[in-house]
Amino acid sequence: MPRVSQDHLDARRRQILDGARACFARHGYEGATVRRLEEATGLSRGAIFHHFRDKESLFLALAEDETLRMSEVVAEQGLVQVMRNLLAPALPGAHPADWLGTRLEVSRRLRTDPEFRARWAERSEQLTTATRERLLRQREAGKLRDDVDVDVLTSFLELVLEGLVSHLAMGLPADGLGPVLDLVEESVRRHRRSG
Amino acid sequence: MPRVSQDHLDARRRQILDGARACFARHGYEGATVRRLEEATGLSRGAIFHHFRDKESLFLALAEDETLRMSEVVAEQGLVQVMRNLLAPALPGAHPADWLGTRLEVSRRLRTDPEFRARWAERSEQLTTATRERLLRQREAGKLRDDVDVDVLTSFLELVLEGLVSHLAMGLPADGLGPVLDLVEESVRRHRRSG
Repeated sequence: MPRVSQDHLDARRRQILDGARACFARHGYEGATVRRLEEATGLSRGAIFHHFRDKESLFLALAEDETLRMSEVVAEQGLVQVMRNLLAPALPGAHPADWLGTRLEVSRRLRTDPEFRARWAERSEQLTTATRERLLRQREAGKLRDDVDVDVLTSFLELVLEGLVSHLAMGLPADGLGPVLDLVEESVRRHRRSG
Repeated sequence: MPRVSQDHLDARRRQILDGARACFARHGYEGATVRRLEEATGLSRGAIFHHFRDKESLFLALAEDETLRMSEVVAEQGLVQVMRNLLAPALPGAHPADWLGTRLEVSRRLRTDPEFRARWAERSEQLTTATRERLLRQREAGKLRDDVDVDVLTSFLELVLEGLVSHLAMGLPADGLGPVLDLVEESVRRHRRSG
């Protein structure tokens, strides 16, 4: 039997993740049945679950991918830029609301299933760390207000991100949120013009 | 046949809403079957649907109740106080996360069903109006920053509330969010100590 190359494995993994993401976005977490995952990825259930233990692992791998991409943006441009990108998706025709909605769908599970919550928390911890590190660098550069603890500023930005995800996932209008994000950004910065 | 008094109708309506709220909180929106709603309210489906057209109407009536209560708090103490109340529920033993989670569960429906979204929007509009009016009064009293439009401040506070609802519904830790809400409150106020 020929040895399967790492490149091939990586490409296959990518193919599964891309298909699964579209499938979750379209049908939701519960609605993404194994049959639909097969259709969306163009692969058999055997191939899919060779790479991912189960649907939950597939979903968490997608969440991990997303967190990784967000963390990269955070490191360079901060968490508010992540939010701005959600308002104006880079890919034309992309509908992030559908995928964001899938995240909301699992909220009950997050609340009631400690193991699932632990696996999820591991991934979101990455984003918290990236945000905190970015803020510490900004503080060193004198750009951040220094009368509020960095952990509080981190939680504040994350709470707004959660609100934005929820807002977009519910299909609520996003017009007018640009100035809100300006206010959020300014709230963590050193200077503010007095009213 | 004796005429049923308005008091009796109101009490019955209250009984249905209280039971249904517990039922939604426990089983989620989809899981709250007619049979479970009967058990939770102690009433037959005939009695329940005499008062409410269908499950959707029952759910929306609960959301309306909640919005009304929140709007009352907003008028007196502002939207940040609504958030503080979510952190420290007034009723011991209350688990608002379960009910908040039900709200998240319907997010897909909100996104994909325009009629449902319209009915929901009508209710959340009340809270927006109450928040906006409170902020305008605060501005007149000189307590609000006046370099940012009141609509932007309203959307900002609502976005944070959405984030908090999502956060609590997912069962994420709420410790440490008090100082975050202080920061939110201070961000809309006139004065800020410079860092």
